[in-house]
Amino acid sequence: MHILVQKYGGSSVKDLKCQRRVLEKVQSAVKKGLKVVVVLSAMSGETNKLLTLAQEWSARPDPAEQDSLVATGEQTSVALFAMLCKDAGLNARSLLGFQIPIRTNSNFNRARILSIDAKKIKAMLKNYDVLVAAGFQGVDDNDQITTLGRGGSDTSAVALAAALKADECEIYTDVDGVYTTDPNMCPMARKIAIIDYDEMLEMASMGAKVLQIRSVEFAKKYRVKIHVRSTFTDTPGTLVTSKEDPRMESVLVSGIAYDKDQVRFTLRSVQDRPGVAASIFTPLSDAGILVDMIIQNTSREGVTDMTFTVSRQDRDRTKEILDKVQHDIGAAEVLFDTRVSKVSVIGVGMRNHAGVAAKAFTALRNENINILMISTSEIKITCLIEDKYTELAVRTLHDAFELDRLGHDG
Amino acid sequence: MHILVQKYGGSSVKDLKCQRRVLEKVQSAVKKGLKVVVVLSAMSGETNKLLTLAQEWSARPDPAEQDSLVATGEQTSVALFAMLCKDAGLNARSLLGFQIPIRTNSNFNRARILSIDAKKIKAMLKNYDVLVAAGFQGVDDNDQITTLGRGGSDTSAVALAAALKADECEIYTDVDGVYTTDPNMCPMARKIAIIDYDEMLEMASMGAKVLQIRSVEFAKKYRVKIHVRSTFTDTPGTLVTSKEDPRMESVLVSGIAYDKDQVRFTLRSVQDRPGVAASIFTPLSDAGILVDMIIQNTSREGVTDMTFTVSRQDRDRTKEILDKVQHDIGAAEVLFDTRVSKVSVIGVGMRNHAGVAAKAFTALRNENINILMISTSEIKITCLIEDKYTELAVRTLHDAFELDRLGHDG
Repeated sequence: MHILVQKYGGSSVKDLKCQRRVLEKVQSAVKKGLKVVVVLSAMSGETNKLLTLAQEWSARPDPAEQDSLVATGEQTSVALFAMLCKDAGLNARSLLGFQIPIRTNSNFNRARILSIDAKKIKAMLKNYDVLVAAGFQGVDDNDQITTLGRGGSDTSAVALAAALKADECEIYTDVDGVYTTDPNMCPMARKIAIIDYDEMLEMASMGAKVLQIRSVEFAKKYRVKIHVRSTFTDTPGTLVTSKEDPRMESVLVSGIAYDKDQVRFTLRSVQDRPGVAASIFTPLSDAGILVDMIIQNTSREGVTDMTFTVSRQDRDRTKEILDKVQHDIGAAEVLFDTRVSKVSVIGVGMRNHAGVAAKAFTALRNENINILMISTSEIKITCLIEDKYTELAVRTLHDAFELDRLGHDG
Repeated sequence: MHILVQKYGGSSVKDLKCQRRVLEKVQSAVKKGLKVVVVLSAMSGETNKLLTLAQEWSARPDPAEQDSLVATGEQTSVALFAMLCKDAGLNARSLLGFQIPIRTNSNFNRARILSIDAKKIKAMLKNYDVLVAAGFQGVDDNDQITTLGRGGSDTSAVALAAALKADECEIYTDVDGVYTTDPNMCPMARKIAIIDYDEMLEMASMGAKVLQIRSVEFAKKYRVKIHVRSTFTDTPGTLVTSKEDPRMESVLVSGIAYDKDQVRFTLRSVQDRPGVAASIFTPLSDAGILVDMIIQNTSREGVTDMTFTVSRQDRDRTKEILDKVQHDIGAAEVLFDTRVSKVSVIGVGMRNHAGVAAKAFTALRNENINILMISTSEIKITCLIEDKYTELAVRTLHDAFELDRLGHDG
């Protein structure tokens, strides 16, 4: 029994016409002799509508009740799509989180999957051609409905593919794959045929919002091949797989990502003594604020500057917290700057290749783009720059690594 | 532990303002030391909206998928109401059909309740003040979602009250009780303080649509006292209970019901031989058409007329079927008349009292209202009349039995 998992996002199931297109894709897989598990999101806009309703009812909606409310979005799309399947003569039925069941922890609004009853689903696939599973939702040990957080349907699909040892997990969306960079920003952007999990993680976390990050982590852990492709065409998309995959091209750099959602904070003249970093970052972390790039200069005469970035939505709360700790750590000043953005060069190939960083810095310098902060990982070089240069920086780096040329090794 | 079950219909939970009023009622019960199980319907209009969506997707929506779809209506109202309860400081949570669980058979769209896990709910009531249960829905043995048919939330509430041996089941609606007849038709109509299950069944089946018939049957079987009352006032409503209840007044006649949804069919000159009735009514029953009053005249020269009534929505299908069987049974003609309606005099007191029928017929004759058909049961006398006389007949009978006078024994 060959099992294919297909996931369709909200824009792919948003109305009857779109669902008919999805049906065609499912039918063609069934005709090939595959058993298909179709994972669906809520119809576009539904989840937001339900969250708005919850906000109308309560300033702080009870998280468990909110999950039960929001889960109706996927319940609606799977019931409707299963009707279409049955009318088309397919042996099909819908499955909700509790019916599969997809067991999660009780961390409502952003639960994590603990287990999936693969044996039950496999037994059902003996009788059914198509199982239409609700994405995004699960149940905890008390049978309370949970949701996996925004974009959680991707994770549902990958987790089902992992549990069922499916041949592949196809993620259908409204773009036709993962690009070397944002095509809206750089017309030379090229669709990537095959990309490594770690590269995809960096692309995703930098705002290339094709796949939910957690689903990629899950796929990496369980070696699930993800095929990201368009509901609206039949062309192949991007295969997300392990770098050991023999089909993987050997490229140094796979893509250029950027993120404009940055604010840089600087604490000036901080006393350089043990525990000072903890005094700053513990209260931020307690407040749920995610700190991104951090730089601490070498101290001079016992004082140092501490610089880091956070998301723009956290600007005011970060300022409040820093104003409180400023005195304790003896900082002279709290400064912030919202006119910054982040560009990154990403590629598993750069692990053993020192020249990539130099090439990136040279390219930016040639365009007189000043680098405000630098951070590097094994597969990524990130520069913080003035945000007015974002577009220029992305295009410059895309050019420098010749990403418009298929298979070139940069 | 004293348990009170309260059920609120769609108009009582249709928006935030209405739900706040429901909250007040629940809070006041909790303040009295009661544990409250609140059963909710979907917000007004939601169920119809979901059914329309299903019709858009499929000419004949798969019944199981339709139930899963429609069940989102109650899921939405219980989640939202539980949020309000928690915000008000009540220890509350919502419960869906599968979470209770309310086990039903697999007769989708009109499932019947098989069992309710009372032990589990009672254990939960040790920790919670308020459990907000979704009406109308259950699960079958395969964990597929089922629904109980239109108005099924009343049945959910009564079944929960029976399982929990609750002190009372309060059914809140947008009218303040059960009336001696339709107040829109007869200004002298009076609210009935207490009514017997059987009387209520007759009132309900005749179109006094305050309670779902099945819920009354359920209440009768398990001796659950139902208190029908208004969400929008605090005055007592109507208590539906057993005629053995010491509070029951001894009245002959409790109310006058009517039903305009009638078509009379006549098969003229049917061969009067064994099996002829079966030849007519079996195909109708197979087509799901409910036949109401049936009259067969004494035969004359081996032929007879067969007359019966059906609901107006079944007129065309009934005509089609009769046209087919006409030849087999040797009937001369198939006639129908939609200009008819039914009026009934209802009362447990008439069981041992022959005078009631005579009084009713006399009253109608005095107004020159011609009686087309008569059928009687132990607690009901029904007359089919021309529908233009419906209002007059209802008022006349209401007057004749002096139903405007409290406690009068007709």
